[in-house]
Amino acid sequence: MRSMVRSVHRVAVLGAAGFAGALAAAIVERHPRLELSMVTARSDAGRRLDHLYPRYRVRRELESYDPDAVAERADAAIVGYPHGAAAPVVEDLRKRGLKVVDLSADFRVSQELYERYYQPHKAPALLGQAVYGMPELHRDAIREASLVAGPGCYPTAALLALWPLRGHMRDAIVDAKSGVSGAGREATGTTHFVSVDENVSAYKVEGHRHRAELEHELGPETPITFTPHLVPLDQGLLASCYVTPKNGISAADLRDLFRDAYEGERFVELADTPPGVREVRDTNICRIHATVEPATGRVLVFSAIDNLWKGAAGQGVQDLNLMLGLDEGQGLE
Amino acid sequence: MRSMVRSVHRVAVLGAAGFAGALAAAIVERHPRLELSMVTARSDAGRRLDHLYPRYRVRRELESYDPDAVAERADAAIVGYPHGAAAPVVEDLRKRGLKVVDLSADFRVSQELYERYYQPHKAPALLGQAVYGMPELHRDAIREASLVAGPGCYPTAALLALWPLRGHMRDAIVDAKSGVSGAGREATGTTHFVSVDENVSAYKVEGHRHRAELEHELGPETPITFTPHLVPLDQGLLASCYVTPKNGISAADLRDLFRDAYEGERFVELADTPPGVREVRDTNICRIHATVEPATGRVLVFSAIDNLWKGAAGQGVQDLNLMLGLDEGQGLE
Amino acid sequence: MRSMVRSVHRVAVLGAAGFAGALAAAIVERHPRLELSMVTARSDAGRRLDHLYPRYRVRRELESYDPDAVAERADAAIVGYPHGAAAPVVEDLRKRGLKVVDLSADFRVSQELYERYYQPHKAPALLGQAVYGMPELHRDAIREASLVAGPGCYPTAALLALWPLRGHMRDAIVDAKSGVSGAGREATGTTHFVSVDENVSAYKVEGHRHRAELEHELGPETPITFTPHLVPLDQGLLASCYVTPKNGISAADLRDLFRDAYEGERFVELADTPPGVREVRDTNICRIHATVEPATGRVLVFSAIDNLWKGAAGQGVQDLNLMLGLDEGQGLE
Amino acid sequence: MRSMVRSVHRVAVLGAAGFAGALAAAIVERHPRLELSMVTARSDAGRRLDHLYPRYRVRRELESYDPDAVAERADAAIVGYPHGAAAPVVEDLRKRGLKVVDLSADFRVSQELYERYYQPHKAPALLGQAVYGMPELHRDAIREASLVAGPGCYPTAALLALWPLRGHMRDAIVDAKSGVSGAGREATGTTHFVSVDENVSAYKVEGHRHRAELEHELGPETPITFTPHLVPLDQGLLASCYVTPKNGISAADLRDLFRDAYEGERFVELADTPPGVREVRDTNICRIHATVEPATGRVLVFSAIDNLWKGAAGQGVQDLNLMLGLDEGQGLE
Repeated sequence: MRSMVRSVHRVAVLGAAGFAGALAAAIVERHPRLELSMVTARSDAGRRLDHLYPRYRVRRELESYDPDAVAERADAAIVGYPHGAAAPVVEDLRKRGLKVVDLSADFRVSQELYERYYQPHKAPALLGQAVYGMPELHRDAIREASLVAGPGCYPTAALLALWPLRGHMRDAIVDAKSGVSGAGREATGTTHFVSVDENVSAYKVEGHRHRAELEHELGPETPITFTPHLVPLDQGLLASCYVTPKNGISAADLRDLFRDAYEGERFVELADTPPGVREVRDTNICRIHATVEPATGRVLVFSAIDNLWKGAAGQGVQDLNLMLGLDEGQGLE
Repeated sequence: MRSMVRSVHRVAVLGAAGFAGALAAAIVERHPRLELSMVTARSDAGRRLDHLYPRYRVRRELESYDPDAVAERADAAIVGYPHGAAAPVVEDLRKRGLKVVDLSADFRVSQELYERYYQPHKAPALLGQAVYGMPELHRDAIREASLVAGPGCYPTAALLALWPLRGHMRDAIVDAKSGVSGAGREATGTTHFVSVDENVSAYKVEGHRHRAELEHELGPETPITFTPHLVPLDQGLLASCYVTPKNGISAADLRDLFRDAYEGERFVELADTPPGVREVRDTNICRIHATVEPATGRVLVFSAIDNLWKGAAGQGVQDLNLMLGLDEGQGLE
Repeated sequence: MRSMVRSVHRVAVLGAAGFAGALAAAIVERHPRLELSMVTARSDAGRRLDHLYPRYRVRRELESYDPDAVAERADAAIVGYPHGAAAPVVEDLRKRGLKVVDLSADFRVSQELYERYYQPHKAPALLGQAVYGMPELHRDAIREASLVAGPGCYPTAALLALWPLRGHMRDAIVDAKSGVSGAGREATGTTHFVSVDENVSAYKVEGHRHRAELEHELGPETPITFTPHLVPLDQGLLASCYVTPKNGISAADLRDLFRDAYEGERFVELADTPPGVREVRDTNICRIHATVEPATGRVLVFSAIDNLWKGAAGQGVQDLNLMLGLDEGQGLE
Repeated sequence: MRSMVRSVHRVAVLGAAGFAGALAAAIVERHPRLELSMVTARSDAGRRLDHLYPRYRVRRELESYDPDAVAERADAAIVGYPHGAAAPVVEDLRKRGLKVVDLSADFRVSQELYERYYQPHKAPALLGQAVYGMPELHRDAIREASLVAGPGCYPTAALLALWPLRGHMRDAIVDAKSGVSGAGREATGTTHFVSVDENVSAYKVEGHRHRAELEHELGPETPITFTPHLVPLDQGLLASCYVTPKNGISAADLRDLFRDAYEGERFVELADTPPGVREVRDTNICRIHATVEPATGRVLVFSAIDNLWKGAAGQGVQDLNLMLGLDEGQGLE
């Protein structure tokens, strides 16, 4: 019967040698409606992806990037390049008509914010068509989009914590703790085991770039302090958020705000106690606990994600599902 | 020559089977002016301390507690019992004239605060003579005291971060991250390796008892939010503090405030970058970085200690040095 | 069409509050051909399994054990009780006709070996019908069995490493390294984070009970030294095996031995380099590298598994698939 | 009184930016009879050592290497360069009359063994004067030496485990587990946190270079299998040794062998149970447990060290103490 024939979309993952790209490739390969048609890498071309990441068991050779080859062999692409390197590739692919999910920062915010936090933008003309890829905030726009910017890991956890409170916040502080995979695959002094093990510290306290996304989504009227910390674990990110409400808010009202915001969301869990990142490891779920501190009336929100899943590759596939008209959670559960 | 004869003070460590007590015993044993005259334990009496804690190499048998035996064999005592269990022991020893450093919460705050956060107090008559044992705040009083309450680990890091700002704070948020040794030696679901490993989470977010000490030292006029988190490491505690100043404060003024507060302090280091807890592991040092966030004018202070050293046993010996008229840092460097 | 109706087998998981039982419940719940019909626990009855193990998201209440209720509601059972406690339960269920996979040690070896290493056996009459549940060794017998004993984690890794060499070994040394989940959920001094973190040590060096299984499967003629070590990680087990061959063996012959033994096995991977346990985490795969040491002619075999998957619950479901006539790997990939 | 004047030896630490060199500098700086007269580094010259290693608190600037400057300002040197780079520097310093402890592999074994395992030797003429710096084996020779080769970390643990058994071994297997600091400060794929965390694996199983030292000290007649493993911790190394004795040996005789070998040794502890590396962290102690496996008659020896202390810098200072006629343990306890 014809109705039984399910079409399969061919997807290329570019920059598949990085942590997010490799996971994206693994998710796509196991996805019932997507076909992993090619994987590319910049410096690891010629190597096999399962040799770099044995645990993902994607037995594919990494190829060099060639936009025409990608266009010929894929209907859509997930781009896992670093910011700055992504924009020209995205431009190549959009010219050739592919739908693109870009996991870099290149299309997440306005040109003005981008250039303030990053560098001169290399494909500003495309910014107008890019949609910020957080389905819980912009689902309908993502469905219509051909270019989606996958959100950063910190903003994902922070925005899902703060979104139900927008309009109610006088100010907010986000004290975030990330596992080391968030720092990427490059071997540096920062990612050396001996630097991280038995350690915890804040970094970039005077302005981490992910702040741009918070400002872009929440607007400039809410002053936000955002402080990332590195903790000795692999995958996992916890955002502890401290919000001074404009007006007092009761625990019951707070509960309603969050329930209303996330009712029916498959990848947001509301929890009765503060979540640990173990509870969401290797899942696309954001787990949130919100409460009012009795002594101060302050609102506390704790939001846990796996930085490689909901904070990068998992959310990217969620976006792609929407863009392709598939079930939003397919391949992610 | 007589001047060469250095007197040695005999010190008993009670509750030496716990993490803080064991370290206190180890520090006392290596201390050039203290003699570890006995170690006691409640449930581990009869066992050798170096069998429980091989790395400390204190080759002593744990004895049962007998206040007369302690009084006969020691001039001073460090008490490492849990709160509630400590007060009667402290009372025994004070009656017999010993100088006492109590590492529990029993004598840290007023009866009113204690009973609000803990339980009915078992020796309220002694509260009047107890001094809060943070030398950077109360050095002169500690020198004169016969009963000193060793501060909690969280309050140690938080108070050293906030003390220079008192009088300048509209409110403060303390987001603290502690290693697992802070949870004590008892084997529970919380301290099971599999619960902690690859995890980070907040706990007791609606009111951890260490808050009592913050309130006691800083006064009720400063609303404080205090949220402890557990991180997968052994020894180390980082307090990330977010302070809204009453009036704007410049980076230069902030630097002066901290320099003035801690000039000459041997166990406080002011750092140019946010400290990691590795930098203070196995030391009695509190390492602090303070900065003004340009975007919001908020003051950020990061304060790192080893929770077992400056947060418990090390600070306890520092107190004892002061009480006995010794050099404050002896045995601690 | 009738052929489209796939029957579903109802499976009870008893002892689902333990690490292996909880994972078994999670695998069964997601299994396309199994229905998780009930979960029981001894001391946690009444609690929800997803509260004990949030990451598995099995939203079911743990019930008390009642053999009649189990028999009424399930066609088969996976028993996750400790050794000694399992045998009577298995007896109950076999009397009522259920197929049983027992994850304890109670039915893994002969009565004689069991009583030498463990304790008097509580259901010796059942030993005759029990099959040792390692499909790579006893697949046909498992298919026919109604009672299968899931192998221990250490023997699983060691036997898969040594099996192709049986008949060729003069002696063998197994130096095994296990993550802490292998020690079970009970909170003890051994599983306390502070005992394990930054540590590695051997334990039970004069005779760990899992040795019984090695002896049972390989026979008494091969003298085996087996030394377990605890390493600071959660899930993962590496067996490093050192075999003195009876006669010299070439690298090529060794490769052939392993290839012949495991050709077509879905859950055994032969690797060109020594495997790390990360490569098999959260999988049912055993990854093996075998080589001949040029200097000594000794055979070195490194075998990595996830102790909770292939070393317990995963292999148990693999067994159940075989017993029920299902595809062997269903629900495990 | 003249006898009260204790001379102080000026010591330069070259290559102080590496893990072993930095610790050597820290030990020398706190040593009552040594003066840390200079520290050098190859690529980090100009930086402060306490900025690279805050926890050591050696507030000194790293200088470039200049042999004449070293000779002018130091009486002795500890060289922390990589193998190959060390030999020419050692030659420079020996020409200028300094006593040298070299922590590299360049002077540990014969030229023949060195060139088999490493590369062409750059200063073979000096090999004749070099003494292998393991005091428990070669104390008298070290006292007389002007050039001492600090042993490798793996050989230190393995040789201390096997030395009492020399002459009694038919063969030996050393399964060693090392923390990541043993891999050095260089940031590589191997030392990336994400590679090590939740992992354990063997490496260089067909011939690690430290084997040269085992062969050199124990002689070629004992066939030795040596397999290093990487475990997720910072400082610590455990050698699990499996020895087939030439003739049967009783537990009592074994105990005597070890007691006789190490009686009076300050840095060797004989333990009743298998040691964990936590028990020796940050110490110069090697902790050993030896036992006879009843079932096989095989001798099992477990030997734990801190790879940076007894396995590198600590043992280097122990050597230097001997060379300078100081108390062997000074500065190390």
